[in-house]
Amino acid sequence: MNLNYRRQPLSLEEYVKGVKTNNRAVLARAITLVESNASRHVTLAQEVLTEIMPNAGKSIRIGITGVPGAGKSTFIETFGTMLCEKGHRVAVLAVDPSSSLSHGSILGDKTRMDQLSRHPRAFVRPSPAGGALGGVARKTRETLLLCEAAGYDIIIVETVGVGQSEVSVRSMVDCFLVLVLTGAGDELQGMKKGIMEMVDIMLINKADGTNIQAANQAKIELSRILHMLPRITEGWETKVQTVSSMTGEGIEECWSTVEQFRTHLIQSKQFEERRKKQAANWFHSLVEEQLLSSFYGSDLIKNELPQIKQTVLQGQVSATQAALTLLKKYQQNK
Amino acid sequence: MNLNYRRQPLSLEEYVKGVKTNNRAVLARAITLVESNASRHVTLAQEVLTEIMPNAGKSIRIGITGVPGAGKSTFIETFGTMLCEKGHRVAVLAVDPSSSLSHGSILGDKTRMDQLSRHPRAFVRPSPAGGALGGVARKTRETLLLCEAAGYDIIIVETVGVGQSEVSVRSMVDCFLVLVLTGAGDELQGMKKGIMEMVDIMLINKADGTNIQAANQAKIELSRILHMLPRITEGWETKVQTVSSMTGEGIEECWSTVEQFRTHLIQSKQFEERRKKQAANWFHSLVEEQLLSSFYGSDLIKNELPQIKQTVLQGQVSATQAALTLLKKYQQNK
Repeated sequence: MNLNYRRQPLSLEEYVKGVKTNNRAVLARAITLVESNASRHVTLAQEVLTEIMPNAGKSIRIGITGVPGAGKSTFIETFGTMLCEKGHRVAVLAVDPSSSLSHGSILGDKTRMDQLSRHPRAFVRPSPAGGALGGVARKTRETLLLCEAAGYDIIIVETVGVGQSEVSVRSMVDCFLVLVLTGAGDELQGMKKGIMEMVDIMLINKADGTNIQAANQAKIELSRILHMLPRITEGWETKVQTVSSMTGEGIEECWSTVEQFRTHLIQSKQFEERRKKQAANWFHSLVEEQLLSSFYGSDLIKNELPQIKQTVLQGQVSATQAALTLLKKYQQNK
Repeated sequence: MNLNYRRQPLSLEEYVKGVKTNNRAVLARAITLVESNASRHVTLAQEVLTEIMPNAGKSIRIGITGVPGAGKSTFIETFGTMLCEKGHRVAVLAVDPSSSLSHGSILGDKTRMDQLSRHPRAFVRPSPAGGALGGVARKTRETLLLCEAAGYDIIIVETVGVGQSEVSVRSMVDCFLVLVLTGAGDELQGMKKGIMEMVDIMLINKADGTNIQAANQAKIELSRILHMLPRITEGWETKVQTVSSMTGEGIEECWSTVEQFRTHLIQSKQFEERRKKQAANWFHSLVEEQLLSSFYGSDLIKNELPQIKQTVLQGQVSATQAALTLLKKYQQNK
């Protein structure tokens, strides 16, 4: 067998047909295409996306966060497998802001979702490598669309409970879950401010064995705290539930809460509204990202920037003045 | 007296001369000019800044943060008055991200630094109103330069210990102080993650009366925690000290630590290096801000954006594709 064997490039039609018929090998390659930073791949990737757009958008998109150690992978394994056995088709994606530094700390280890990733109705994709959070987020969003077009009706986006990635995940899902452990106060304080206000459903994980009582106590305390916080979803008070990925206790209830939540979103007209707002924000951030990259990539700026910057560093001119001068040159030159 | 009497507009020369000779009335007007968003003021403001640049940069810039209630204003009042009495000239500025919403929660109330603001060697300026944090930060940076040119050798920039403003203040000062209260663990956890790693000096405030023992205990605990964290300034382990704005205990020591810190920065060549890096970063953020505002302000984008955005919202085209199309049009049109 020739290890250097190169797979035949696929045409636009082959990609589109493969994704729409959920050919897993083609779906995986389409995701790789979307993840590629090579400019020759970008055009084709966007053509594929435009073609599959009418088939996307029909899933429920669920974000899951929690500090490392909260048991996200095990929960998703149990939750996802249960959903597959109910007849759903489940895709699991990850946004991991640390992946470019640590070479992937979540989902990187395939064995962590061993059972789910081998399930014929599931599709598990680790975090895309490389780039800033913005790039990783773009790839995850577009992967989400591809998975929807392939017929996955539940998309789970996992992220670690640190830094800016929750905001990014919150901005691409319908429903946002956080997994916490018992020891309510510590848990809350260990988390980034503002996370609590982005959450629709809170799950107290590892509610099993000798931990059950503490979990129930935490549920009462957390409900009380959440009751005082502003809510992200109008008319929906953040639900707190206990769950055990080990015994399976509460896993079914978790799904029924997600379903209740979806019904609430749809009936209150927030579902479509939220999706539209998300799409609009995403579009703006893409426009801005590309505007900046074409600015910094232009010959004029490459030539002029170092010099002008030097005058700022030497205190010869104010930074604002230098920025105005540079912009003027750029605009006259275009 | 005619209340509608309008002050004579000042010329560039009058502004520059007034600032350089520390004519307080002119300095105050120069700051107002710099804070103005009116385009007719921007050109003059930048001319003034460019002229005074050679006289700026000679102060020690101190950032001070802490959660609301940590006693920042009272500390600055005591600390600043002590410095003035030592012969220094002290300017106090504020970056308050909430000011545009709440109409100023810090420094807004002039009486909060009553003694200091009436001191002939001090200059207290409340947070500039209006605009996003980016705008407030720009105004504060430029105000800082004006104050330096007016001969203030110690600039204190105050901010509230929430949100993004610490990063912004950290990026414009040499030395960053945080004020905390006793109850070490709670205090640390209540603060935003990452703040601790930006800090050079930590002050445990209100170490007086029955609180002294708890403050000393907190000092030991906090030193231990900080010892384990990465440091922002090479070769400098975050110092923890107790202080009382009421009794004045520790206020002198605080200044001597700041002086030690400055000596360390200069001897390790980090002083100039940090200033250059800050100026470079600032310049880049200004360039990007202006690039975006000229993009969104152009007729083409004003005309085309709503339509293209609509196609994205209706799922007719991928957001990335739409962004690429819009950028192409913009670039061809220029």
